[in-house]
Amino acid sequence: MDLEEIRRGIDGVDRRLIALLAERKALVEQVSTVKKEQGQPIYVPEREAALLAGRRLEAQEAGLSPDLVEDLLRRIMRESYRAEGRGGFRSARSGAGKVVIVGGAGGMGRLFGQAFADSGYQVVVLERQDWPQARQLLQDAHLVLVSVPIDATVQVLGELRGLVPAEAVLADLTSLKREPVAAMMEIHQGPVLGLHPMFGPTTGVMAKQVIAYCAARFPAESSWVREQFQVWGARLRPVEPTVHDELMVFIQAMRHLATFVYGVHLADEAPDLREVLAFSSPIYRMELAMVGRLFAQSPGLYGEIIFSSPGIVRQARGYLQRFQQALSWVEQGDKAAFHQAFAEVTAWFGELGQQFLRESTFTIEKAHDHVV
Amino acid sequence: MDLEEIRRGIDGVDRRLIALLAERKALVEQVSTVKKEQGQPIYVPEREAALLAGRRLEAQEAGLSPDLVEDLLRRIMRESYRAEGRGGFRSARSGAGKVVIVGGAGGMGRLFGQAFADSGYQVVVLERQDWPQARQLLQDAHLVLVSVPIDATVQVLGELRGLVPAEAVLADLTSLKREPVAAMMEIHQGPVLGLHPMFGPTTGVMAKQVIAYCAARFPAESSWVREQFQVWGARLRPVEPTVHDELMVFIQAMRHLATFVYGVHLADEAPDLREVLAFSSPIYRMELAMVGRLFAQSPGLYGEIIFSSPGIVRQARGYLQRFQQALSWVEQGDKAAFHQAFAEVTAWFGELGQQFLRESTFTIEKAHDHVV
Repeated sequence: MDLEEIRRGIDGVDRRLIALLAERKALVEQVSTVKKEQGQPIYVPEREAALLAGRRLEAQEAGLSPDLVEDLLRRIMRESYRAEGRGGFRSARSGAGKVVIVGGAGGMGRLFGQAFADSGYQVVVLERQDWPQARQLLQDAHLVLVSVPIDATVQVLGELRGLVPAEAVLADLTSLKREPVAAMMEIHQGPVLGLHPMFGPTTGVMAKQVIAYCAARFPAESSWVREQFQVWGARLRPVEPTVHDELMVFIQAMRHLATFVYGVHLADEAPDLREVLAFSSPIYRMELAMVGRLFAQSPGLYGEIIFSSPGIVRQARGYLQRFQQALSWVEQGDKAAFHQAFAEVTAWFGELGQQFLRESTFTIEKAHDHVV
Repeated sequence: MDLEEIRRGIDGVDRRLIALLAERKALVEQVSTVKKEQGQPIYVPEREAALLAGRRLEAQEAGLSPDLVEDLLRRIMRESYRAEGRGGFRSARSGAGKVVIVGGAGGMGRLFGQAFADSGYQVVVLERQDWPQARQLLQDAHLVLVSVPIDATVQVLGELRGLVPAEAVLADLTSLKREPVAAMMEIHQGPVLGLHPMFGPTTGVMAKQVIAYCAARFPAESSWVREQFQVWGARLRPVEPTVHDELMVFIQAMRHLATFVYGVHLADEAPDLREVLAFSSPIYRMELAMVGRLFAQSPGLYGEIIFSSPGIVRQARGYLQRFQQALSWVEQGDKAAFHQAFAEVTAWFGELGQQFLRESTFTIEKAHDHVV
């Protein structure tokens, strides 16, 4: 056989693959309908694990890489989660209810508003221009969800004083939790639920996304809200507000600050970016993309996360000192000090270091697949 | 139909998918054989582009997401590149030849040694203990490839003086190019080729990987080496040694230094890593993994890249000042200054910012597929 002939054979296989995907899609749509009728959650970890384990085994028997088959199926399942959502969701609250989203025209407000609407709730948006009608809009609300910028949250909550129905769940979506939860507790005597969705408004699917929550008062009264998130496929993590805010300094504020400074550094030094990219293998391109990504988004959000984080100043000072220290090692050619510090960090990461190496290699390989 | 029944249908589709993959694999093996016979390169960008364009179109016609089909095919093709390599490669040098790898027992030495051996060359390894037989081992070599740590390169080249056959190509794999290329030019009067493969020894496949090169003397005499890399699927980038080293301060040294300091910072502050992970959505987990990854590897390699980079001290001082500046904005609550600097960096990234946002979102979605 010549090359062209074999290639035609490969194209034929790929076309049958497309036909199979279409067939699978139709079946997933049926799953979606049945799940909605029976009120079952989108994401069922046990089913996913069983499916993957079964196919991995069969892949091996067929002389294929089990990782290849798992990678493909996971990518296909992402599409399924998206498709399942389109069919709408079961309401976790019987008879559904009224959800008022304060700041509902923003990115996160729209995302949650759409999901509540898809789940049979009456969704009402309260934006700046609606404040004269606020009392009327908030009447009979079962959930009042505040989705405004961090630095406006406490002020907006102040304006809500006396307007939130006594039985309603008062909740917020702010990236910090100590101050907003305290403010909610102060202005509302009913159930209070602090929320921090660990994803941005560009996220199309809530399946498998993490939502941190502080059930600050009457947790039983707000359980339907959390159950609703679970129906959407989200994974819930309870946390104390102060613990949450301390963790976020690591997870968000310090990372964002370091990335911000690196971007400023690049723009000041101004290397030829296209030339840099020409020599960047996937891992370096990805690191650069993670920097560029920040500056393609809103300075407001990142600024608020950095500026409002308690403890950021102390941590940033510590980082600065450590950088100064490392620089002095480089200036003095003190490789021994570098190696010792390196070894200490390796020990601190422990087993997770190897796991992180595997995970990131995996991600880099994925990025490499798409190099042209 | 009940849920169980539909799920059995999905499992059936997935099994047929596995059978199709096995069929495709057999065809790729035929391609591999034909390509080897005809001496064609593994990676043919035009064929790949045409295949993907065709299937994207058909995906759309079938009511599927073209991105889904492209993602799946790219993942499948990665496996194909790997499989094609196993069949061996055409020799770019007629009658093949003798390749001596100095430091051939190290990670990169082994990777290149294996690839040359798979391409019909006689591969000889020259390690520390072999120096007494060096003259004999190097006799009649067509390529002498130095693959030793950065800080040993110049010294090893000194020891090779007078031992490299006059006609042989002398090449190195060091991450910096100015000093090693100058040293090669000095000890050898024949063809000199500085190389910097932009990937590590864990890379199983050279297809689509970038190799930077400096054809410092008699480029025509070393063209067969570059052609051999192309047969393996690598993408070659010519560069001047000094330009290369300046770019690498950005691409490697400063990134590694900033990541190193971030790791030291984490280990000193010592948050509960498992708790941090529990609240980390895929993007934050990936950022953390990129830090942990460094410390799961050799301090020697990273140390050498950082300590040996010309200009690292000047750049690190600049970064430090910029961090100090940003910290003072946070201390003083000067959000306006933060926003202005942010806007300047956004402008500097230009169109690439949006591209980086798309690329990284894509990568994050892939990581999210694998969340359990």
